[in-house]
Amino acid sequence: MLTVDEALHRIASHVRSPAAVRVPLADALGCRLAEDVASDIDSPSHDKSVVDGYAVRSVDFARAARGEAAEPVELAVLEEITAGQMPRQPLTSGHATRIMTGAPIPDGADAVVMVEQTSHAEEIGASMVVVTFHTDQITPGQNIKRRATSIRTGQVVLRAGATIRAAEIGLLAEVGRPGVSIVPRPRVAVLSTGNELVAPELLPAAGQIRNSNGPMLLAAARSAGATPIDLGIGRDEVDALRRLIEQGLEHDVLLLSGGVSAGKLDLVPGVLQELGVREVFHKVSVKPGKPLWFGVSGASDPPDCLVFGLPGNPVSSLVGFELFVRPALAALAGHAWQPPPTITAELGQAFVTHGNRSTYYPARLDESGERPTVELLAWQGSGDLRTITEANCLAIFAPGETEYAAGASIPVMRI
Amino acid sequence: MLTVDEALHRIASHVRSPAAVRVPLADALGCRLAEDVASDIDSPSHDKSVVDGYAVRSVDFARAARGEAAEPVELAVLEEITAGQMPRQPLTSGHATRIMTGAPIPDGADAVVMVEQTSHAEEIGASMVVVTFHTDQITPGQNIKRRATSIRTGQVVLRAGATIRAAEIGLLAEVGRPGVSIVPRPRVAVLSTGNELVAPELLPAAGQIRNSNGPMLLAAARSAGATPIDLGIGRDEVDALRRLIEQGLEHDVLLLSGGVSAGKLDLVPGVLQELGVREVFHKVSVKPGKPLWFGVSGASDPPDCLVFGLPGNPVSSLVGFELFVRPALAALAGHAWQPPPTITAELGQAFVTHGNRSTYYPARLDESGERPTVELLAWQGSGDLRTITEANCLAIFAPGETEYAAGASIPVMRI
Repeated sequence: MLTVDEALHRIASHVRSPAAVRVPLADALGCRLAEDVASDIDSPSHDKSVVDGYAVRSVDFARAARGEAAEPVELAVLEEITAGQMPRQPLTSGHATRIMTGAPIPDGADAVVMVEQTSHAEEIGASMVVVTFHTDQITPGQNIKRRATSIRTGQVVLRAGATIRAAEIGLLAEVGRPGVSIVPRPRVAVLSTGNELVAPELLPAAGQIRNSNGPMLLAAARSAGATPIDLGIGRDEVDALRRLIEQGLEHDVLLLSGGVSAGKLDLVPGVLQELGVREVFHKVSVKPGKPLWFGVSGASDPPDCLVFGLPGNPVSSLVGFELFVRPALAALAGHAWQPPPTITAELGQAFVTHGNRSTYYPARLDESGERPTVELLAWQGSGDLRTITEANCLAIFAPGETEYAAGASIPVMRI
Repeated sequence: MLTVDEALHRIASHVRSPAAVRVPLADALGCRLAEDVASDIDSPSHDKSVVDGYAVRSVDFARAARGEAAEPVELAVLEEITAGQMPRQPLTSGHATRIMTGAPIPDGADAVVMVEQTSHAEEIGASMVVVTFHTDQITPGQNIKRRATSIRTGQVVLRAGATIRAAEIGLLAEVGRPGVSIVPRPRVAVLSTGNELVAPELLPAAGQIRNSNGPMLLAAARSAGATPIDLGIGRDEVDALRRLIEQGLEHDVLLLSGGVSAGKLDLVPGVLQELGVREVFHKVSVKPGKPLWFGVSGASDPPDCLVFGLPGNPVSSLVGFELFVRPALAALAGHAWQPPPTITAELGQAFVTHGNRSTYYPARLDESGERPTVELLAWQGSGDLRTITEANCLAIFAPGETEYAAGASIPVMRI
């Protein structure tokens, strides 16, 4: 039987990103960029003011600064430029231009004085407005942001492979990209199999259980950034299963739950083989989740569809998803392959392992103290989803019979 | 001017979760549960087998176990029960029942033997099937999961306030909840204001810039789990602004960008006042992002709408979102109020701060070593979104003129 690492390695060797697609910018959030993006503009596009105030010539303040003027500097206001407008007149000696944050600096000006350092401008006569400055410390260039200091036209501002967050969305909008080429979200079809399953809105008759795996795996796929597709419940009947599995194989990933252990009605592997899905492995040395099945469809490599047959027990199914499917979905979405990350924590209680499989045990990780600690939960086995809802991690124990003392350092995987 | 902490405190005092709503289970992912949920079933609903194999009576193996039998135990197979079926016959001495994983244990049986520990069952005569067991170590109860050991009927399995992840979705499906009462995702309207703005698909004319804040804030709201509503660009014209802001006030949160500094066309505060939005504060001692405006609409408390006027410079706007809006959205979604979490990191280079505001500086946090380290980026100021796309955190510096040496410990906030 494969170890967890071996199984992950086999999965990794079959995962390739699907071809890039072009999407509207708003749909690209969370995806990986599939192209280098160059700017079609300078940013800023002009020398511009970074404050609300008056564009001035610093030489007009030189006498006052040298103490040669008794009065505060007064300048006649030429015009007012708000953001979105261009200056109409160059600035000449003895004049100032009222300017708003973001507006272009007029020719001739070499500094901006904040409005807070001036008096309310006074109208003198019909068309003359004079403003009084309460500072004479004017440094050339002050409060001016020079053209192209953030971005030059033609500069590559984002590289293929970048993860698109809100800041990247803003930048792409700034450089004129209302649409962008991305690695698409993997499309994940989910099919629950088994005659014992009924929909969550029904009361199970004797021997039946509700289909919890379907909704759970759809949610897990969505939480991993994939687009989930619900194929519902497949009965243990070859023709019906074949139709549903055929539908599922049209997606990037097909998640099957149930139907892959050794029971007489576990028809799934046969149907998959018939539909040209090649088995890569069946069973992994892991607890819970041993009867995991993994295969690939399509003649080519990379395969058309990755098929995961997850066990029917909900906790086994969820652990299988976190351990094997989530890393595959991240890689399909264009991220570098990475096995599930773990951190080391101090075990809160003694624990004895049995058997020859790695154990992934529902637990609570506490990172509030100096060192992370982990408490195992009172877990009732692979059918016990309730306890998993109290967990925020899986504590990982190596195969074999081992007594772990309280305080032992063990790896844990966040869920 | 308020400090960051004071501003956060004021915001916190106005945030209450909106009323709970009932949604289909699939739409509840990531939300907070707004009701206690009790189970309508036992789980398991019957004593059930946890393996594929044979249900047996352990007493039938007692002679063999004591070494009193020379031959391996052979039992006649009564019937076969697959998952979803009920046993038709109680198990009597000398018999076994073929049973699949998850199927109910027949009356009379007290153990299940895995199929791997038996020979292929042989047909003897017309209707008699005999199975041979290659073990005699049978413990009463083995491979049986008892009724209601995971969940009892009536037991509260999830409490109001739980965050709904994939495991919770699975559990809610299991206990018969195809719909569930949740704290709804906050609805966040985004309006960019300014005559200088053009849509990302247009080439800006002289003095114009593309609207990067709108798409960026919509993406930020979505990344925070909220439902974004795009109100587009509002021109600096009172009637048009009033109509758009009125629309925005119908949502839980209205994010305005631009129009809240001291410029002559910054009409937003006036329009807000006219529409009955009460100012809670204007300006925060933070760099970038000083001209932040926060107010509330509606006569009652909690208010109908929280209004954030974010600065027009994109980096100021994004920092304002991360610092003030994201915590408010989390609280609106039913999470306990929490200011933005920080961690301590070692500064990679010397840095000198100026001025009387807290500084939030774009930086790269590296957690791969023994201690987290943080490198400040070559940031060109609040218009420079490109550098923010290289950042994964903001390095936080206290107000005042301080020389930080390389290696100093400073707080950083992940973005």
